[in-house]
Amino acid sequence: MKLGSLKTGGRDGTLIVVDRGLTRYVVAGDVATTMQEAIEDWLNTAPRLNAISTALNAGERDDAEELDCGVLASPFPRAYEFVDGSAYLPHVERVRKARGAEVPESFYQDPLMYQATSAGFLGPRDPVPVVSEEYGIDFEAEIVVVTDDVPMAVSAEQAAGHIQLLGLINDVSLRNLIPAELAKGFGFLHSKPRSAFSPVFVTPDELGDAWQDSVLSLPLVSTLNGKRFGAPEAGVDMQFNFAQLTAHAARTRPLSAGTIVGSGTIANQDESLGASCLAERRMLEIIANGKPETPFMAFGDTIRIEMFDSQGDSIFGAIEQSIEKYG
Amino acid sequence: MKLGSLKTGGRDGTLIVVDRGLTRYVVAGDVATTMQEAIEDWLNTAPRLNAISTALNAGERDDAEELDCGVLASPFPRAYEFVDGSAYLPHVERVRKARGAEVPESFYQDPLMYQATSAGFLGPRDPVPVVSEEYGIDFEAEIVVVTDDVPMAVSAEQAAGHIQLLGLINDVSLRNLIPAELAKGFGFLHSKPRSAFSPVFVTPDELGDAWQDSVLSLPLVSTLNGKRFGAPEAGVDMQFNFAQLTAHAARTRPLSAGTIVGSGTIANQDESLGASCLAERRMLEIIANGKPETPFMAFGDTIRIEMFDSQGDSIFGAIEQSIEKYG
Repeated sequence: MKLGSLKTGGRDGTLIVVDRGLTRYVVAGDVATTMQEAIEDWLNTAPRLNAISTALNAGERDDAEELDCGVLASPFPRAYEFVDGSAYLPHVERVRKARGAEVPESFYQDPLMYQATSAGFLGPRDPVPVVSEEYGIDFEAEIVVVTDDVPMAVSAEQAAGHIQLLGLINDVSLRNLIPAELAKGFGFLHSKPRSAFSPVFVTPDELGDAWQDSVLSLPLVSTLNGKRFGAPEAGVDMQFNFAQLTAHAARTRPLSAGTIVGSGTIANQDESLGASCLAERRMLEIIANGKPETPFMAFGDTIRIEMFDSQGDSIFGAIEQSIEKYG
Repeated sequence: MKLGSLKTGGRDGTLIVVDRGLTRYVVAGDVATTMQEAIEDWLNTAPRLNAISTALNAGERDDAEELDCGVLASPFPRAYEFVDGSAYLPHVERVRKARGAEVPESFYQDPLMYQATSAGFLGPRDPVPVVSEEYGIDFEAEIVVVTDDVPMAVSAEQAAGHIQLLGLINDVSLRNLIPAELAKGFGFLHSKPRSAFSPVFVTPDELGDAWQDSVLSLPLVSTLNGKRFGAPEAGVDMQFNFAQLTAHAARTRPLSAGTIVGSGTIANQDESLGASCLAERRMLEIIANGKPETPFMAFGDTIRIEMFDSQGDSIFGAIEQSIEKYG
């Protein structure tokens, strides 16, 4: 099934069940008012939401309304925890190579992951408000999973069974703030503001064979200002699968229902498939020509992020955001 | 007024109003069910909660029940955002001095702050579950403030008006996991598991003259296994006040109602007042004798953290936790 949230109804929005074709929806109110409420009681709510989904896809819900992704809230308008991995090592390798640094051997066994802000997510078509273009505005196209309650110190095998939903994210990054921030030693804060999820999150069964061993094997398409930017294969070069990332996140703490675990920017060794962020294209330009040619995003620029199934249908709907001057 | 949460009522507990002496409480149900609900509509809920508090303190609430801090939940059992500063530079200076490093000049103008986990907080008397003593278990005694909705990019002057509640925190740290984690460059994750707040959070007016210019000027007392460990003055050597820390947190994002901003470990230049964490005492031992003598916490060890007003009365109630082997 596919789930989303209307902006109405308060800070957590209103949970809706969306049809497979992303054209119609029904409010899930009799099962759960919000996505957070649903995931907190998933054993009970998932079958009931699934029944709504089945009827909706069969055309049996007369109360279904036309879906406009443009007015949706984030599926989770806010969450209690978002931990973002960096599972695609080609991204890390390129960034390091550009500045002449090696990738430590440990990075191939021990996932990179950071604690990200979860207090608010932009709607899938909301503009991204930024104070200054000087911040070096970039998108990052990634996949996220959502867990139910995960006990502390679980194995990856155990963690796999706690992955209940998948979606896409535009993990907005302010590149020019990163070097000074990371140099302070305490990780990202200013350089990782609010991000945006895809219009809907889906259960793993919606992905068919493309979801195996906690890896989603489809290209993730990024389109910048209307031009295809990149479509790396999310099933290739993922050093740590989502079960391993989830277990990593839970090593010294339980994860509470609704925890969002990110894959990191999708990137392949095969450069011909393009990139999922501007920083990486700029790195390739630096490696090739000694300097970057592609600028970071300017006010008014738009980024579209989408994933299609083998029939060419959009799975999660498109994230489509423009950059907007704040204040 | 003083507010806390019972463990009953679900993941967010049940909001209670507590009397000044921390002996009696009434459920705030007719105003707001949970602390989160209260802070999200603070303009409306605060005056009504204050009316309950006034009646309770005047002995006019026949429905008041006896308070047992031992069964309380965290005032916020969970939150959407927790950002922890490091405003007491003597702490940073000592840690760096012990390893022969300088404190960068920028640290005196630009606050250190990290994105911390907020998905669950331990109750004030709950044990701290840790997998292994080898992790180097430490407490950190700090002060936190809670904001209402703070717009992006506010000034410190504007941020000051958004501080609505104060409390204490035991920011649990797993010291032996920190070096490898920070070396990866993405900040704390495993080394900062779930923390615990004081039994109650209080409004600034409860602090009288001790709260001025967004600084709380009272000693914070830490007691380890029944022995006084330290009582540094929170009003001394705070390089950045809570308004500045809040504005720093909001530089590239709005803060949503219920955001928790931490002071960092309380530490003074005056070493005679003791420390608010084991790491710092160990650092002083290393500086003095070349090696640490005080061990990190073992299973069964207890830490008590409390702050008293000028009459010697406990303001927030005591955090008192033992370390417990997990699994």
